[in-house]
Amino acid sequence: MLRELKRVEDVLEEVLKYVTHRLKSIRVRTYDAVGRILAEDVYAKVDLPPFDRSAVDGYAVRSDDVFSASPSSPVILRLSDSNEVHPGEAVKVCTGDPLPEGADAVIMREHVVEREGFIEVLRPVARWGNVSRRGEDFKAGELILPRGSLIDQISVAAMLATGNLEISVYECKIGLICTGSEIVEPEILKDVKDIEELSKRGIIVNTTRFLVKEAAESIGAIVEYYGIVPDDVNQISKAVKTLLERNDMVIVTGGTAVGERDLTYRAIMSLNPDYMWRGLAIRPAKPTGIAVIKGKPVLMLSGFPVAAYVGFTVLGVPIIYHMMNMSPIEKAMLRGVLTRRIAKPPSLRAYVRVRACVDRRDGVIKISPLALTGSGLLSTLIRGNAILEIPEELEGYEEGSQVWIRPVRDLNYCEE
Amino acid sequence: MLRELKRVEDVLEEVLKYVTHRLKSIRVRTYDAVGRILAEDVYAKVDLPPFDRSAVDGYAVRSDDVFSASPSSPVILRLSDSNEVHPGEAVKVCTGDPLPEGADAVIMREHVVEREGFIEVLRPVARWGNVSRRGEDFKAGELILPRGSLIDQISVAAMLATGNLEISVYECKIGLICTGSEIVEPEILKDVKDIEELSKRGIIVNTTRFLVKEAAESIGAIVEYYGIVPDDVNQISKAVKTLLERNDMVIVTGGTAVGERDLTYRAIMSLNPDYMWRGLAIRPAKPTGIAVIKGKPVLMLSGFPVAAYVGFTVLGVPIIYHMMNMSPIEKAMLRGVLTRRIAKPPSLRAYVRVRACVDRRDGVIKISPLALTGSGLLSTLIRGNAILEIPEELEGYEEGSQVWIRPVRDLNYCEE
Repeated sequence: MLRELKRVEDVLEEVLKYVTHRLKSIRVRTYDAVGRILAEDVYAKVDLPPFDRSAVDGYAVRSDDVFSASPSSPVILRLSDSNEVHPGEAVKVCTGDPLPEGADAVIMREHVVEREGFIEVLRPVARWGNVSRRGEDFKAGELILPRGSLIDQISVAAMLATGNLEISVYECKIGLICTGSEIVEPEILKDVKDIEELSKRGIIVNTTRFLVKEAAESIGAIVEYYGIVPDDVNQISKAVKTLLERNDMVIVTGGTAVGERDLTYRAIMSLNPDYMWRGLAIRPAKPTGIAVIKGKPVLMLSGFPVAAYVGFTVLGVPIIYHMMNMSPIEKAMLRGVLTRRIAKPPSLRAYVRVRACVDRRDGVIKISPLALTGSGLLSTLIRGNAILEIPEELEGYEEGSQVWIRPVRDLNYCEE
Repeated sequence: MLRELKRVEDVLEEVLKYVTHRLKSIRVRTYDAVGRILAEDVYAKVDLPPFDRSAVDGYAVRSDDVFSASPSSPVILRLSDSNEVHPGEAVKVCTGDPLPEGADAVIMREHVVEREGFIEVLRPVARWGNVSRRGEDFKAGELILPRGSLIDQISVAAMLATGNLEISVYECKIGLICTGSEIVEPEILKDVKDIEELSKRGIIVNTTRFLVKEAAESIGAIVEYYGIVPDDVNQISKAVKTLLERNDMVIVTGGTAVGERDLTYRAIMSLNPDYMWRGLAIRPAKPTGIAVIKGKPVLMLSGFPVAAYVGFTVLGVPIIYHMMNMSPIEKAMLRGVLTRRIAKPPSLRAYVRVRACVDRRDGVIKISPLALTGSGLLSTLIRGNAILEIPEELEGYEEGSQVWIRPVRDLNYCEE
């Protein structure tokens, strides 16, 4: 029994004092950095575009030369093959070509009649018309991405184009241990008959590891999966010790409820933690625990997949950002209308899985609660697409209330 | 010069008649399927949970036995070690344990006083109280995920837990060729000096390939990158032919504008396509083209990164879903308020990159347009987080208009 529950913020305030370990940063080739977290502010090293370039297919000209051009009185320019445009000349260019010396505009092909060695220009063009100016995308010295950004292919393209061929990224290595003599890895199962046979003995497939992996990788961490450790204090503590040496954080799932089998707690206590707390005033994931051993965090998550996911999100993520000397990057929640009343017990913060949909007619987001309890209910994560947080002091929300939700996957339109 | 532009829908209606190729499906182990597209409807093969199980730490009992329990007159039950609960007995259970035979409820540990060999039960419990019923998460036969779903770790967990150890996924292989003697791969560059040197000769880093990769992988496709092919009709057509044999779709970037260097068009025409069209009534990505060769699609995208990204989204994605006999899965757009007037030329559909933020006070989404033109402007994708589509018949939107946007990354809160 958890005698006392603490608010997430209070536990974080305490535990962060003990987490003295910091993530290392490593230099990588930028095109290998997708999915990692940026460990430096990245600035443009060159202008982008690196030169004035033509934005269309046409003819580079001096805009002054064609000031008076019109279909009834075209301006005639001599076609030049050189890379310079002298007064009275034009040079043929394709989209993307550097603007030849001397030119300050490009006439579109459609606005020209081509003759042997000459062109007739049918309309004027403004100075820098149809030209992408050097540096108009990014100027040298401009910030491209701040430290802490999660790197995607678009970021890679922008960093490469601005001369950042190598960048510093954080190396965040998480060691993951799943405990429990009642779980089994899917790798060793042949078919559904195996599952049926095992379930008769109370043994189930280990799915929690996939949810922890999803949550960890979505913030740029790499998971070293140790495997399942049976319900044995010595084996658990040995595994934690081993993983802690080569990782920045260790996660142990299962064995956090305070029953006979509460071995994770005892295993970690045997390693003389600098800090240890179990029991958060939240639902699900109440038995989530956190220890600090030699400055590194050891997170104890529920063996139930949904509770593990929530526990990692509320405690694991802020601790990882702390190890980069940062706060987690705040993402906006969306506001919508609750389609059904929802109640919760007092003094716990609830993370309710909801299904949110967008009304095609007016854009209103309609929010249907799926489950307040059921820390093992994967269906609520499959059918749900957002989380509704209800603070400690409220007992719920009435139908029709305006509430904030945190989307976890894409929203669909409501069915009519 | 593109003499005629067609609406995206009209081109799709034509081209899909010629795309007779269909994606193959392959069987994979479910835990290897993250990022792939499901090629079958997946149903639960077993109940989840596979058995009635305790949701708390406590004592399995017969609810009838403790009907009258109260702190002043506790019910005394004999503790049993067996896996069956007879009348008058209780069996100790931990969270997640299968419910022993005969029991129909679990009393929480907190509501019991334990004596040597007996317990005093201090309050009653409803039938199935503190029990997760067999099949309450998923029932055998229930649909878990429909065909066409993009598989993430949560889906993996749900499919594994319901007995789906192997599943069918689509194999969607895209061959990618970047053309242009003016682009160079980042792999061969040492440092920023190389970029500066090359840019003097009009040569730039190839970034378009990263955007195509991002867009393709986000819908579960695998990209085989051929590399850069110089501006030469024979080399381009040879590369297209080679890739087409072992891929489901080929993408060629660059050379789609209709200038002197319009070699991609000629290269593909030399392969006798069943269908060919270039020129979409959209902005950016107007010169996007599509051909069909022996029933397989060949997509011609702009060499500019943003235009390539838009071109793939509007033409490539629906064609890939067509090869699965499906329409793309519709995601909801979000509705917000435009902070600035935006104008566009008539008769083109515009894809305006915008920056959307959520007002902390009322949840209103505020939308600032970044760029209508500038098909090469990576900064609009880095600073932007959504796309605003303006239909052909409108000339733009006034400031304060309610508009729909398609988010492409997370939204932040507006700065105060």
